[in-house]
Amino acid sequence: MTDTATRPETTDAADPRLGEALKVALDGPYHAARQTARDTLTAVEILRDPSLSMDEARAWTLKALKHLSAKGYGNKGFTLPDQPSDPAAVVNGFEALAHGDLSLVIKAGVQYGLWGGAIEGLGTDEQIARWMPDIVATKHLGCFAMTEMGHGSDVASIETTLTYDPETDEIIVDSATPSATKTYIGNAALHGTSAAVFGQLWVDGKCQGVHCVVVPFRKMVKGKGVDLPGCTTGDNGHKGGLLGVDNGTIRFDHVRVPRANLLSRYGGVGDDGTYASPIAGSGKRFFTMLGTLVRGRVCVGAGAAIAGRRALSIATRYALRRRQFPNPDGGEVVLLDYLWHQRLLLPGIAKAYALGFANNDLIGVLAMGRTGKVDDDFQRSLESRAAGLKAAQSRFANDIVQVCREACGGAGYIGDNQLTLLRSDVDIFATFEGDNTVLMQLVARGLLTGYRETWTGLDRRETVTKTADMVARMVLERTAGRGTVDALVARARRVSNEASMLDRGWQVLMFDERERHVLESLARRYQQAMRAVPGSRFEAINEMQDHLLTLARVHTDRLVLGSFVAGIEACGDQAAKRMLNKLCDLYVIENLEADRGWFTDHNFMTQTRSKSLTKTLNRLCTELRPAALALVEGLGIPAEWLGSKMLAD
Amino acid sequence: MTDTATRPETTDAADPRLGEALKVALDGPYHAARQTARDTLTAVEILRDPSLSMDEARAWTLKALKHLSAKGYGNKGFTLPDQPSDPAAVVNGFEALAHGDLSLVIKAGVQYGLWGGAIEGLGTDEQIARWMPDIVATKHLGCFAMTEMGHGSDVASIETTLTYDPETDEIIVDSATPSATKTYIGNAALHGTSAAVFGQLWVDGKCQGVHCVVVPFRKMVKGKGVDLPGCTTGDNGHKGGLLGVDNGTIRFDHVRVPRANLLSRYGGVGDDGTYASPIAGSGKRFFTMLGTLVRGRVCVGAGAAIAGRRALSIATRYALRRRQFPNPDGGEVVLLDYLWHQRLLLPGIAKAYALGFANNDLIGVLAMGRTGKVDDDFQRSLESRAAGLKAAQSRFANDIVQVCREACGGAGYIGDNQLTLLRSDVDIFATFEGDNTVLMQLVARGLLTGYRETWTGLDRRETVTKTADMVARMVLERTAGRGTVDALVARARRVSNEASMLDRGWQVLMFDERERHVLESLARRYQQAMRAVPGSRFEAINEMQDHLLTLARVHTDRLVLGSFVAGIEACGDQAAKRMLNKLCDLYVIENLEADRGWFTDHNFMTQTRSKSLTKTLNRLCTELRPAALALVEGLGIPAEWLGSKMLAD
Repeated sequence: MTDTATRPETTDAADPRLGEALKVALDGPYHAARQTARDTLTAVEILRDPSLSMDEARAWTLKALKHLSAKGYGNKGFTLPDQPSDPAAVVNGFEALAHGDLSLVIKAGVQYGLWGGAIEGLGTDEQIARWMPDIVATKHLGCFAMTEMGHGSDVASIETTLTYDPETDEIIVDSATPSATKTYIGNAALHGTSAAVFGQLWVDGKCQGVHCVVVPFRKMVKGKGVDLPGCTTGDNGHKGGLLGVDNGTIRFDHVRVPRANLLSRYGGVGDDGTYASPIAGSGKRFFTMLGTLVRGRVCVGAGAAIAGRRALSIATRYALRRRQFPNPDGGEVVLLDYLWHQRLLLPGIAKAYALGFANNDLIGVLAMGRTGKVDDDFQRSLESRAAGLKAAQSRFANDIVQVCREACGGAGYIGDNQLTLLRSDVDIFATFEGDNTVLMQLVARGLLTGYRETWTGLDRRETVTKTADMVARMVLERTAGRGTVDALVARARRVSNEASMLDRGWQVLMFDERERHVLESLARRYQQAMRAVPGSRFEAINEMQDHLLTLARVHTDRLVLGSFVAGIEACGDQAAKRMLNKLCDLYVIENLEADRGWFTDHNFMTQTRSKSLTKTLNRLCTELRPAALALVEGLGIPAEWLGSKMLAD
Repeated sequence: MTDTATRPETTDAADPRLGEALKVALDGPYHAARQTARDTLTAVEILRDPSLSMDEARAWTLKALKHLSAKGYGNKGFTLPDQPSDPAAVVNGFEALAHGDLSLVIKAGVQYGLWGGAIEGLGTDEQIARWMPDIVATKHLGCFAMTEMGHGSDVASIETTLTYDPETDEIIVDSATPSATKTYIGNAALHGTSAAVFGQLWVDGKCQGVHCVVVPFRKMVKGKGVDLPGCTTGDNGHKGGLLGVDNGTIRFDHVRVPRANLLSRYGGVGDDGTYASPIAGSGKRFFTMLGTLVRGRVCVGAGAAIAGRRALSIATRYALRRRQFPNPDGGEVVLLDYLWHQRLLLPGIAKAYALGFANNDLIGVLAMGRTGKVDDDFQRSLESRAAGLKAAQSRFANDIVQVCREACGGAGYIGDNQLTLLRSDVDIFATFEGDNTVLMQLVARGLLTGYRETWTGLDRRETVTKTADMVARMVLERTAGRGTVDALVARARRVSNEASMLDRGWQVLMFDERERHVLESLARRYQQAMRAVPGSRFEAINEMQDHLLTLARVHTDRLVLGSFVAGIEACGDQAAKRMLNKLCDLYVIENLEADRGWFTDHNFMTQTRSKSLTKTLNRLCTELRPAALALVEGLGIPAEWLGSKMLAD
């Protein structure tokens, strides 16, 4: 049914090719793969009816997963006996499904990325050959059983025990305590039959830390699951979203599996019954094992951002159709003509582009690391970038989907218009694959690594000087390879407050200086805290937690801006490039405006300049307004995939 | 099932009576009524199973509504032939139900507050006597049919026509266009049989503007609804939340009702067939009629805030039980020991108190206006306050419920823990009973009222002076009655940057000065815009939309602070008073910190002071941490009403 206040969106006065060119630019090196998905997947294959009950949603999701698996979607790029892993293909495959129902993409992520990923990442070549083919063929459904009732973020403290029994050459899997119960495990409530179970490995009376073992826990009898002896599964039941994913609990009561089920790439039990590992230190081993999970984090961040783009595409198209009040001057006023509506949506679009470019770069880094033959610094930098972007993208998605829902008023709340399903499904992206707060601390702590040894033996004054030196070097190092921007930054540094706010050099300088200052002051505080008397360590570190999180945020912001700048440089289409430059301005100015107190307090900005940020923000919104449709086309979601009834003509 | 990382919350080391005393203080003048509800309602009567399907939820909600109605909950305080309206009882009744399922409270709001409220507010005494008894007895279920597909916020433009036919002495109700279809109407999909239908009244070929008529549209045949001739209902289907409310559409095809069904308090058709109204101007009549809806806005704001309190109660209690990482110094670290977790929850608690006191004051003002014999200024001030607080409370609720969900990690996403139901249900509170953005503009425009006539005939310089004078007088007038605070403010004004940040006078001064400055600069811009050439009016006003919204926010913030200060003064318990003072500090400092750039840019704060805001914020959180349990007890939600499984021992 149509109504007089909602009409097909006005088409762009500008170059009609603009949306296409923006899409190509944002796709970057992955354009071919992404366009293939757009051209071959259909809305009906990936969109779920928002009104399905939990049981119906679970059934739909399983069916859709198998259907797409047969067509080769969602299960490409994983390690197989004859084929090495292709991380970019994995992430792009995940992203493609994330354009549709988020339960479907998470179900795929659980099956291939987590259950398969545990075996790919932690298993030997023999183990990969044994299990992976059936996993990627969606024949052997399984779980990634890491989280326990008692321990989520603190993986090192999980309580499940994996005890080697030399008598029978088996591993005994046991949920030693009630809080060792595995929970929130996808595929555990209904469809999985085996699980990659994480627990503390005990060999010959000695704990070797967290390891992972493949445990069959359920058999299917006439399509119904029956728990295997010693295994007890439960259903987490109704959740806030992702109703299509059957999360559940698993408890093990001294369940025995052959030693060959212990995933042994980084440590296992030899034929002689003794523990052996190619990695000497148990700390390093633990982090190496956890490090293999980074791909999942990249996927989840990328998927969340796609959800944000989808919401923006829906809300912007609606805002180009819907009238709210008549124009006092006569004529039509659509919602997007209101300044505030522009302020709600356009900076979100700018951020979606910014994060998109950063995500492309992250995929590139992830793909570089696939040989497994990378050094510690590389791995640390990859993990930090993945953690920071996962937090940034899932935060962005949660915030912008809500903004979009509200921007569509009552229509936004109707299930058929698709925003509320997105809202409820994307929520948990802030938590799974790493709680955002924990991840951001990981980013910040990573940046502080290396200071501790340097400080040893230095007095207070030496420490201050040394720290400042190191910070300056680090920020410089990490901003290398920016090409033409560096000259602009150098120039902006000389003129600073005289430079235009839209001078890219000045903008980058502001992001650099903010990170440098936050890092330097934190490093100094941290160094003090290290000296805290035993028994007050927690308190000393805890006092800086907000500072740590600020560092993670401004560091990630700087990386994102760097990617945006590089993405613009790589764009060959002049019209698109102009538009990307304006979007980049909007991204930066909104970011600076939100932090303007910090910049003036630390003398990086005059009051006059700070005051004019809002005006500039408004002006950029007004300038981008006429291109709004092209901007959301550039976000790359085919209009027919939006599935929003209010946009149907 | 229990787990080692989640234990019953640590009880407060401080006075165990503290929670109770805080509750009494926050209840304020309505303590008796609120406590009665706590003592007599039970969780099972007001909490819904989050996993119910839409159909099940609708059935549960109707049943619960009728059950509570029989017990006298939700339907108290409405106008009856022998009994005038008691607005405070209405709002308190709404709030009581809002402690439970939000579908239930909205269903009650639709039935009594909107359907009944239209008749109470717009009907004559005869019409009240005719319909109200069966409405409050929940025998005659009905709808409030205002919103149309084409028009939500812009009520003046609705397209439904109510045409008086002198031949038959009837009103012909017609959905003249597809976009005139009534939509999102509660009780329309299933349970309602009549509707208060808003439309343009035409009498003798002349349009008299928006009026309201009672239209039977459905009859119940063996418990099933059948549309009456000319009426076509539809179902809005699955929504983002409030699944228990049967929102739907209604279309009218020349449906005839007797003239006596036209609600005629402010205008109707006489026996002679001509239109007559006690209010001369059609503009004034329209706003008077809309003004009767203010009670609903107060209820919705109050209910949203209760949802926020409920989420805070759940998340804080969980944070007092749950451990995440071990303490490096040994001992227990619960989530709430982390500074950032305190920063997430404690300012939210402070804001819940602040809004609670403001809400009490708003109920007081609403109750004063019940005679209907109030002047325009009073009514305008009431409507502005209600609009501002509705926006503030529903924004607060949406934001804090999401924070609370994330603060509870994976457990927060499980339906049985109650946060996700709150999250999805409270979402639409930002939209219904007035879109928040529209409401905030109403607040700001209200503050600008009166300037226009003053400006007439003044030149530019005179205008500037005159405007500054008026603003100063307005802020002064509106802050009268603050008692002891005024002296503190005067002192703070003299010492300003030397005053302590925790000096209440200085804090109030900052809120005053911010509003004064924002209003003054907006008034000047507005005056310029008024002079814009015809054809550019929209653009001229539109450029200031963000400024308007800022004014509404800082104005509402100032009112809220005023109520908090008054609430503290009224508190007789010394321990509670100390705690409220600290909460007020936290409320203020968080508010100032978020706006620090503005304060330094306008020289109301030095850089040094601005920089120390975060430190003060952290310190206040640390100081309030030990009292956390008492603080949420003070929010007044009985622990047994939280219904959150993760809190069950």
